[in-house]
This record gives sequence, structure tokens and C-alpha cells, in this order.
Amino acid sequence: MIFQAIRQQQPLVHCITNYVVANFQANGLLAIGASPVMADDPNEVEEMVSIASALLLNIGTLNERTRKSMLLAGKKANAQGIPVVLDPVGAGATTFRKQTVQQLLAEIHFAVIRCNAGELAAMTNTAWQQKGVDSGDGTIDLVAEAKQLAQRQHCIVIVTGERDLITDGEQVEWLTGGHVQMTAITGTGCLLSAICGAAYTVGNKPFQQLAQTLALYKKVAEQAIATPAIGDFQLAILNELHAFSKVGDVSCTL
Amino acid sequence: MIFQAIRQQQPLVHCITNYVVANFQANGLLAIGASPVMADDPNEVEEMVSIASALLLNIGTLNERTRKSMLLAGKKANAQGIPVVLDPVGAGATTFRKQTVQQLLAEIHFAVIRCNAGELAAMTNTAWQQKGVDSGDGTIDLVAEAKQLAQRQHCIVIVTGERDLITDGEQVEWLTGGHVQMTAITGTGCLLSAICGAAYTVGNKPFQQLAQTLALYKKVAEQAIATPAIGDFQLAILNELHAFSKVGDVSCTL
Amino acid sequence: MIFQAIRQQQPLVHCITNYVVANFQANGLLAIGASPVMADDPNEVEEMVSIASALLLNIGTLNERTRKSMLLAGKKANAQGIPVVLDPVGAGATTFRKQTVQQLLAEIHFAVIRCNAGELAAMTNTAWQQKGVDSGDGTIDLVAEAKQLAQRQHCIVIVTGERDLITDGEQVEWLTGGHVQMTAITGTGCLLSAICGAAYTVGNKPFQQLAQTLALYKKVAEQAIATPAIGDFQLAILNELHAFSKVGDVSCTL
Repeated sequence: MIFQAIRQQQPLVHCITNYVVANFQANGLLAIGASPVMADDPNEVEEMVSIASALLLNIGTLNERTRKSMLLAGKKANAQGIPVVLDPVGAGATTFRKQTVQQLLAEIHFAVIRCNAGELAAMTNTAWQQKGVDSGDGTIDLVAEAKQLAQRQHCIVIVTGERDLITDGEQVEWLTGGHVQMTAITGTGCLLSAICGAAYTVGNKPFQQLAQTLALYKKVAEQAIATPAIGDFQLAILNELHAFSKVGDVSCTL
Repeated sequence: MIFQAIRQQQPLVHCITNYVVANFQANGLLAIGASPVMADDPNEVEEMVSIASALLLNIGTLNERTRKSMLLAGKKANAQGIPVVLDPVGAGATTFRKQTVQQLLAEIHFAVIRCNAGELAAMTNTAWQQKGVDSGDGTIDLVAEAKQLAQRQHCIVIVTGERDLITDGEQVEWLTGGHVQMTAITGTGCLLSAICGAAYTVGNKPFQQLAQTLALYKKVAEQAIATPAIGDFQLAILNELHAFSKVGDVSCTL
Repeated sequence: MIFQAIRQQQPLVHCITNYVVANFQANGLLAIGASPVMADDPNEVEEMVSIASALLLNIGTLNERTRKSMLLAGKKANAQGIPVVLDPVGAGATTFRKQTVQQLLAEIHFAVIRCNAGELAAMTNTAWQQKGVDSGDGTIDLVAEAKQLAQRQHCIVIVTGERDLITDGEQVEWLTGGHVQMTAITGTGCLLSAICGAAYTVGNKPFQQLAQTLALYKKVAEQAIATPAIGDFQLAILNELHAFSKVGDVSCTL
């Protein structure tokens, strides 16, 4: 099982991320036995990513300095064969975000893009109202656009929402389950993107590893909702991630 | 009831805030059904605030870049009639903070200023020892200075402490209750300021909406203290905010 | 007892720190009755540190701007006799971190350096693989290098791990106990460094005050593990810090 494989291999995930969720992301990665490192200065990101197993670029609180760092780290990761995950937070909300994402997509090869429907729309230049966006209900357009983006970028595209979609441009899989309360706390999507980075590194069937990650993350939500109070729910997610990565033996069918 | 109105209308609150409390603020806004967005780069704050319902400027971990962003976002918000809340964290502690606050007050029209007694003193050039400051006990000076600031800035001034004071320069209301443990965790004042931004937008009687917000926040503290352990108390506040925004029906007398 | 002395004296600890753990650090300091202030801009750090009881420099998410701030604040603190604590997070991971630490050690007098074995190795130019580093098991080299660093920098050096080592260059003490789960959440080491800053200020026997702090922090871990779920454990640490600083009377044998 993928979380157990992560605990066994303890990949180091270098996150250039936003300060709103950095703590939650670090603790979430630690909860499944991965090792987080946050470093975002142009002076050191190339060296830092070189010792990492995966790189996460999350534009949640983007600025000029971290944009530069993302480009440096992403290119270095590409040169060294280290997988890069993009989380294009609010990509359609401002020109600065949209242009940064376009530049990142043009100059860096991503292994995985993890987004919601509005962010997908921004990346494929589809009309969409970014504010209050949700993944919708699996219209044919969502599949078509995700596949198109995956083909164009030669990567796996994950679009999360009430149902999650994963595609490598050919295969398409839908994941159901989870719980809507995941959208009522900050950082659950951001954490999932970081976990995707860890999951990508621990086997040689990325599509299956990531599909299993999405399925497990929905199970985590289903377990965590047993602790429904909104503050405690946040920690229940960490508790369940921890539990899932420890149950049973670590033999992994992937 | 104001929190229920917020849950119904889901205002988007753009926060230019400090990294110490950003997560707590985001989860606190989400807990009452508001929608937070943190973005602090000069490249995008004008565009981001344009799609927001309210703007919060919090100088807790101010730097040159975010100072510029605050000015840009504040002016844009003014131009578009979007209410702006100022949280002048530690305004009297350093010259940089005091000058920034003076510039913000000179160039931006705030709908609400939410501060403590020491920060009020810094804004009205009253002698005060910023360190270890507390709101005192409602001396006549506190009322006089808050009223004067409200008149000068044409805004609502809220001074929180053991008792909270709210004034629009004419009306003055005191709110009692709450619990002293609110001062023993970081970010409760910062979160209140963000909630004031949300509360301001959901009706047309701002003074009453904000007075009710202060009263409810004290109720939240009184409920949360049933979970007295200091770590858990932090989450109990989120739990209670959530509960208060959901109880009963959403008919709002304001 | 040292935590009770901190609660009694309420030292203000100025932290120039990383955004991953800033909230946890602030709440941890508050939990024992200390007063945190985070401020990291060159425009204000000299003024801010001047009103503080102690200064913490933590390079966890270092950048050019905060490097400059650390130098300014550290020198000001030295000039005013305010103790400075260094937390050289990941010192050996990148050239930027290593060079920054070397510059800080050359230009600032630290009262305390709190590190792990890998960071110690980076400061003493010993070969070490920074990634996945742990404090080892008290080999003679660890003692020799910590003593050497303490002598060279005229300060107290604390190396934490399964066992903690404290030395002033002559005396050496080992502290045992604690719980390995402290390494499974982010920020426990960072928080300890901040608490060391507070502990240093509340007496005139720094070595004993810090040794007692290390011993108590291990007790905190032993108590907190009664709440083993990883998310809740994080808050249990805050709960226990709070409890330890309140038990019994505040008479302090130090």
C-alpha cells in the first residue's frame, strides 16, 4: 500500500510552498513517514532540490523571489531526473498567477499537476469564474481538458473535487468517496499535492501509485469525519494519515 | 445572527497578513463559512482585492514588499468600494510600524480599525509602553481617543481587551464577557480582525454587525474554555466559531 | 523550576524564524508564559530586539532579506547585552546555509547554540551526510566537537537527539528520556531553541537553567505521548508545557 511504501522509503520532499499551509504540509508529510524540507530562496533551491526525492511547486503565496526560485529549482530537478509536482493554486485569479503558471509549464517538465477545476480551466484557457470554483460533476469537458493538458505537458493530471479525476492523457480514472468537510479547512489540497510528490517516487507505476494515493486520501477523509468538529478535524486528518501508513505490513503490491 | 449571515453569503476576505497566524486566520474564516485568500505580492494584490468582498491589512510581520502591497491593495479597494480593515499589530513597537500605520491611515480609507489599547495609543500619539500592553479598564481616555481616531479617520474603531470598545465617533458601546485565555494563544486578535472584515460586508448596519461580532466572539471564548488545555483551546475556538455559524436558522435580525 | 520562573518573569523573545513553525513557536512560548514577537525586516529588527529579553535566530527558511536582518539584530543584541540563541537549521544542507552560519558565528556572539548532530558537524567542518541526520548515540566525537565549538564561540552548545548533550566547553552533561515521536512532528527542535532563549534570561546560572530546560522538555514529551495520535500529540506538547509552567509554586531553586 502506497502510504506504507512511503513510510518505508522516507522520500525527502522539497516544497516551495505558501506560508498559510507550510506547517500542515510538513506535518502531513511527516505523518506518512516522508521527510519535508521547505526552502525557497534562489540562493539555495538548486542545491536543496539536488538532495531531494521530489519537488513541489505551490503558488499559493507567490512573489517575485519565489517565482524565480521555482524556475531555478524546477529546471535543476528536471536536469537530475527528480520528479516535480505543480500545484497552481488560484491560477486563474490574477494575471501574475496565470503568467507564472504559463512560464512554469513552458520551461519545466512536471511529473504531476494537481489542481481543481478552476485551475485546470486557467491552464487550458477555458472560460471559468475562479472564485468559489468547484470541480463540478465530471462533465465531458473536464475529462477532455485534463487529457489535453496531460498530453500537451506529457504528465499526469489530477483534478480533485467531489470526485477526483486522474489521467495521463490516455487512461482516465475517477475516484469517489471522501467527505465535503475537506474543503472547509485550509490546505487539504495543498497537502495532497505534496503527498503526490512522495507517492510518485516510491515505485515504478506512477499512475497506479497516484490513483491509490487519491483513493486513500478519500479514505482518510471518511475516517477523519468521525471527529466532525472543524478544528479537531484538521488534526484527525494527520492522525488518519499516520494510521494508514502504519497499518499492516509494508509489502506493497505496486 | 451575524455568523450565520456570513455562512450564508460566504464573503471572500483578502488578507495581507503575517505568517505567524495566517493558517489560524484562514481556518477561522472558513469555520464561519467565509472564504479566505492570502496574497501579498505587489504584482497581484490589486487584481486579487478586486474580486474580494473585504480586505484585511495586518502588519504583524511587515516588510518593505508587503508595505507596498498594502498601499496598492488598499487604494484599489477604496476605488472599488470594498471595505478595508486595519490591524495595526504592535504599531508602537518600532518606528517602521508606526510610520507604516501613519502612511496607511493617510492614504487609505479604512472601514474598521481593530486594535488594542497600546496600538490605539500609537495611532493617537499618546504616551504608552507598547510592550506587555493591555486594553486597561475603560478609562475615559480610551473612549476619548478611540472616538477621536474614529472621527479623524471616518471609520469604526474597535479596541479589544478585557472589555471591548466599539465606536463610530459618536456611538460608543462596551462588550463584556469572554475569557482571558484568549490572550494566551497567538492570533485571536488577528482572527477577530479578519472576521470583522467578513462581518462588515453582510448587511447595511456595520456598527451593529460589528458589535454583534464582538459579543459573539466573547461567547465563543466562553464556550471554548470548556476545553481549557492550552493547545486544544486553540482548536476549540475554531470548533465554536463553526458551531455558532450553524446553529438555528440563518434569519438575521440585522 | 525553570518554566515557572519563565511564567513569572514573562520574557519577551524576539524570533527571526521560519514560517513553517512560527505559529507553533509562538504558541509554545505563550504556553510557558513567555511573550513571543516575530519581526524579520531590516527596517525594524534593531529596534524590536532592543525591547526584547532574548533573540532567536533560526535559519529554517532563510533568504537574503532575513539574513541581513539576523546580522543587524544579532549585533544590536550583542551591543545591548541581550542573549542571542542560534538554531542553524539544516546548516550543512546548502552552501547558502553553511556560509550564513559561518558569517553569523564570526560576527555575532551567541549565548547558546542549539543544534542536532548534523548541524554541529556543519559548524565544525566535520564530514557528515546532512540528510536524514540524527544525533547519534553520544560518541566521543560528539562531545569533543561540541566542546570545541563552545570554546571557540564562548557559548553554551546544546546538541539534541535521542540523548541531549549540553556543554559550556568545560562541563558536559547528558540528558536522557523524552520520546522519539518528538521527531515525527515539525518544529519541536525549533520551539526548544526559542524556549532556551526564554530560559537563559530568568536567572544567573545559564548552564543549569538550560540543562533543566532540556530535562523538562523530555518530561513534556513523556507526558505528551499519553496522547499518541500524531496530530493531537502536537497540541499535547503545548498542553504539557502549559501544565509544567503552572504546577506548584513558582519558587525556583536556580
